[in-house]
Amino acid sequence: MTTPRLVEVREKVLKQNDLRARALRQRFGASGVCVVSLVSSPGSGKTLLLEKTLAALGREWRVGALVGDLATDNDAARLARTEARVAQITTGTVCHLDAEMVQGALDGWNTMGLDFLFIENVGNLVCPATFDLGEDLRAVLFSVTEGEDKPLKYPTIFNTADVALITKTDLAAAVEFDAAAAHRSIQSVRPGMEVFEVSAKTGAGIERWLSCLQSRRSAGISAARQ
Amino acid sequence: MTTPRLVEVREKVLKQNDLRARALRQRFGASGVCVVSLVSSPGSGKTLLLEKTLAALGREWRVGALVGDLATDNDAARLARTEARVAQITTGTVCHLDAEMVQGALDGWNTMGLDFLFIENVGNLVCPATFDLGEDLRAVLFSVTEGEDKPLKYPTIFNTADVALITKTDLAAAVEFDAAAAHRSIQSVRPGMEVFEVSAKTGAGIERWLSCLQSRRSAGISAARQ
Repeated sequence: MTTPRLVEVREKVLKQNDLRARALRQRFGASGVCVVSLVSSPGSGKTLLLEKTLAALGREWRVGALVGDLATDNDAARLARTEARVAQITTGTVCHLDAEMVQGALDGWNTMGLDFLFIENVGNLVCPATFDLGEDLRAVLFSVTEGEDKPLKYPTIFNTADVALITKTDLAAAVEFDAAAAHRSIQSVRPGMEVFEVSAKTGAGIERWLSCLQSRRSAGISAARQ
Repeated sequence: MTTPRLVEVREKVLKQNDLRARALRQRFGASGVCVVSLVSSPGSGKTLLLEKTLAALGREWRVGALVGDLATDNDAARLARTEARVAQITTGTVCHLDAEMVQGALDGWNTMGLDFLFIENVGNLVCPATFDLGEDLRAVLFSVTEGEDKPLKYPTIFNTADVALITKTDLAAAVEFDAAAAHRSIQSVRPGMEVFEVSAKTGAGIERWLSCLQSRRSAGISAARQ
């Protein structure tokens, strides 16, 4: 197994990350920006969901996004077609975003000028779990094509997320997706977790997701004012 | 970014892993067993492909499989329905298999008694890339539902793999999969890479994959005899 030495150094890195994430969270809170991160395996549809989310929220709110990827800026280029302010974080061979990368990408941004900031993590259902990015809400996505047991097989990421989205529901029939089994998997790992079934392609379920985001923002702002 | 200290310790861990993988490769070579590892993101269809591969090869060859997962032994239970000898490696929160885990799982196995050994890695398109498992052939899978640009976004895993499989081709029409674009992505990251298009569900393309495995085994044995 992984040597104790690596675990020890990793723990130090995580501790540093937690401190940086705490500072980010304070900064976001003071700015009144609602920060939402998206995690999933590659190809679960994070970017398309984000594209639709930015376009819809952008009609009423000031929105921005940070997009993490090992290589390429394809996603940032896609998202730049919306009105949102978008920055790419290219991680090289690093398999997750950390608070320092987020901090660096926001260098020079006035987060006071934003209502929502989205952070799209690297496609990875394992490693991003343990890195706090200072977000208010962490959403874990998995698509109907990935199988109903993903929450059971990747429990840590579901445990560290606040809400789950089952994506690509337009393909549910084609892959004989068992929605009840998927919900059971999620609830057995994280009882009470709020779950959204969405298709960014057809728009099904998107309204409920947008309402959730907007009420989270209002709740955050009232809490900050108290 | 990740601190230099973590990188340094990680390099030591990788060096140890390389030594263990070399020992495994010698052991496998001496046993005459052909070792094939499968890597992909979660839900790309590794287990179903493996199930069909074990069932088909098992009619003529002695086959075994090691199955890596963070939690659950669902996959091992599925594969145990074939005639193959199967062992589960539960990694906890570790996001990849390493050579030591493989060595541990094979403790007490007589690899002389096998013609093929398959190793299914944890679903992760990033971290398994850098861990040599002593395999003869590393196959990277990605499904038509994940998007044609995955090789561009996760180049390291494609660079360390020997062959690529595009899976779930039965869903290609439903997701408007652009096969030419996917092949271009693969070839731009790893020119000349052999690619298989398969559907484990319908059986399409499986024969060619099985032939590849059998000729790899023959080639390995002739090389060992020389």
